[in-house]
Amino acid sequence: MTTSPDDHAKPPVGVLGLGLMGTALAAAFLKAGHPTTVWNRTPSKTGPLTAQGAIPAETPADAITAGPLTLVCLTTYDDVTELLRPHSTDLTGRTLVNVTNGTPVEARKLASWAEEHGIAYVDGGIMAVPQMIATPAAYILYSGDERAYGKHHSTLAALGGTRWTGTDPGLAALYDLSLLTGMYGMVAGVAQAYALIRSEGIPAGELAPLLKDWLTVMANGLVPGTAHAVDTGRHLTDVSSLAVSRAAFPGLLHTFADQGIRTELLEPMRELLDRAVAEGYADDGLSRLVELLAS
Amino acid sequence: MTTSPDDHAKPPVGVLGLGLMGTALAAAFLKAGHPTTVWNRTPSKTGPLTAQGAIPAETPADAITAGPLTLVCLTTYDDVTELLRPHSTDLTGRTLVNVTNGTPVEARKLASWAEEHGIAYVDGGIMAVPQMIATPAAYILYSGDERAYGKHHSTLAALGGTRWTGTDPGLAALYDLSLLTGMYGMVAGVAQAYALIRSEGIPAGELAPLLKDWLTVMANGLVPGTAHAVDTGRHLTDVSSLAVSRAAFPGLLHTFADQGIRTELLEPMRELLDRAVAEGYADDGLSRLVELLAS
Ligand SMILES: NC(=O)c1ccc[n+]([C@@H]2O[C@H](COP(=O)([O-])OP(=O)(O)OC[C@H]3O[C@@H](n4cnc5c(N)ncnc54)[C@H](OP(=O)(O)O)[C@@H]3O)[C@@H](O)[C@H]2O)c1
Ligand SMILES: NC(=O)c1ccc[n+]([C@@H]2O[C@H](COP(=O)([O-])OP(=O)(O)OC[C@H]3O[C@@H](n4cnc5c(N)ncnc54)[C@H](OP(=O)(O)O)[C@@H]3O)[C@@H](O)[C@H]2O)c1
Repeated sequence: MTTSPDDHAKPPVGVLGLGLMGTALAAAFLKAGHPTTVWNRTPSKTGPLTAQGAIPAETPADAITAGPLTLVCLTTYDDVTELLRPHSTDLTGRTLVNVTNGTPVEARKLASWAEEHGIAYVDGGIMAVPQMIATPAAYILYSGDERAYGKHHSTLAALGGTRWTGTDPGLAALYDLSLLTGMYGMVAGVAQAYALIRSEGIPAGELAPLLKDWLTVMANGLVPGTAHAVDTGRHLTDVSSLAVSRAAFPGLLHTFADQGIRTELLEPMRELLDRAVAEGYADDGLSRLVELLAS
Repeated sequence: MTTSPDDHAKPPVGVLGLGLMGTALAAAFLKAGHPTTVWNRTPSKTGPLTAQGAIPAETPADAITAGPLTLVCLTTYDDVTELLRPHSTDLTGRTLVNVTNGTPVEARKLASWAEEHGIAYVDGGIMAVPQMIATPAAYILYSGDERAYGKHHSTLAALGGTRWTGTDPGLAALYDLSLLTGMYGMVAGVAQAYALIRSEGIPAGELAPLLKDWLTVMANGLVPGTAHAVDTGRHLTDVSSLAVSRAAFPGLLHTFADQGIRTELLEPMRELLDRAVAEGYADDGLSRLVELLAS
């Protein structure tokens, strides 16, 4: 058996949408040695990429026909639908990887449309900012057509880590939104914490190392601990009960008020803790709140 | 110069309040070799500690006169005030370390009273649950009388790590509440995230490792990054703007609604993002929210 140079050539890819994220993704394909054909609605944005060796496409169809895999990264699913529907025939037999942010419902709808048109559909959720693409910290969640995903896995690995979430095409978006939700909670807590410490004239940087370590410890303990409690239905705790949290909360909010700081991001937690205790869950841990949000 | 065995003997301590936390603190003193005199309103709770070598006190005064340092750990500052005022003369010339949870205002009030009575006052904020006391993960924030703190530092180190926050007695409580605030934000985000993933029949344990890593990365990047932006007043971002967050939020909330999950812990973030953009901060990063909470 002989090995021709072509066996080692990286498969060509097409990228549609060269915003901040699309540009970073196309650049990562190029850097990994994939012949990369790029298209953007505003053509001027192809400049930096063609300077790095990308092939500019006149039309989306030109980018799509450039290789077996087309990656699309626009603002919304509506933009993707608008762009692809008229070109549907061009994608037949190809794999479409859509990393545009959206909801599970949107992903499933687009996957159905793709199936009807003989397109292998893979949905992606990017857990990174453009600056992190192709670094070890970045990964993309994938779901949908597992065969197509397997076939193109080594190509997709050029963009950073990969996490397969399942064949339901909505799963990547579901995991993505769940992780973002966790992040927005943390953002809210951090914003309130810094507002409080600064109200005493203390720079946020004084609290930062303590807050970083504290939240890291919490992420490593509370995140798996809560999952375990929820999945087993065992919410009773000997560590930190809802009764204790509820008793501490008015003092917490009072301190913000004393300092002239708004508490709007914290208020609903107080109400939920009140409800938890009123419904008889005083001795349960914070995991009980997961159930209360579902009822 | 000769060294008598007494030079190496650990100083005696008194502990008032043997709830979950007070019991853990007294046990840590005992384990470190400090003669420990304990008192609790409900006397039966001294049992487990006397079995470990603690000396039971009949009255709070008996525990206070047992050594130069008295640690108090009750439910609220009101409980501390109620307990100590009648016994004030007993504490003259001694150091009182109060690790009861409270607000900066309460800590300052108690510190003033202590000063009037010739008591060196140190306030403490415990960043741990009882199970963590005297382990490397636990620490206590201290503020107030720096001389007394310095004198008793090696005794206090028996309880876990120590963090000095300053001579204003309210600072330990301020840092403590700021860290708790950050934690409650994370709890809210984690609860919403698990509620969402479970709405599709996926166990929380499937999301847990991703969420743990994601929040750890965020804690290490976003927490110091936000502090830096706030302290320098440079809120402009090229990573993730308020406009992008605001645009993504309705889709996020919509997904929860589709899944029949309540969004009450997330709603105020949407309103704050709307306000941020309406007030002209679309291009700023999430650090801008800290300013908006103070205005
Ligand atoms: N940036 C991040 O940190 C980040 C992180 C994770 C996920 N994402 C997701 O990645 C996607 C793109 O984000 P981005 O940061 O690259 O946004 P962006 O810089 O605003 O770029 C948006 C891109 O979409 C194109 N577009 C929008 N509507 C279109 C339409 N109707 N037809 C054709 N093209 C259209 C734009 O073309 P023009 O150049 O012609 O306007 C541009 O190329 C979004 O879904 C975002 O949520 C971004
Ligand atoms: N547990 C934690 O995870 C944790 C973490 C950090 C900080 N803290 C703080 O530590 C403090 C104690 O918490 P804990 O968990 O030990 O609570 P706990 O188990 O409920 O114990 C409360 C203690 O306070 C005593 N007490 C209450 N009111 C009193 C009064 N008027 N006079 C005399 N004694 C009184 C109780 O005595 P009786 O036995 O007679 O009722 C008991 O010893 C609280 O401020 C809490 O916020 C706790």
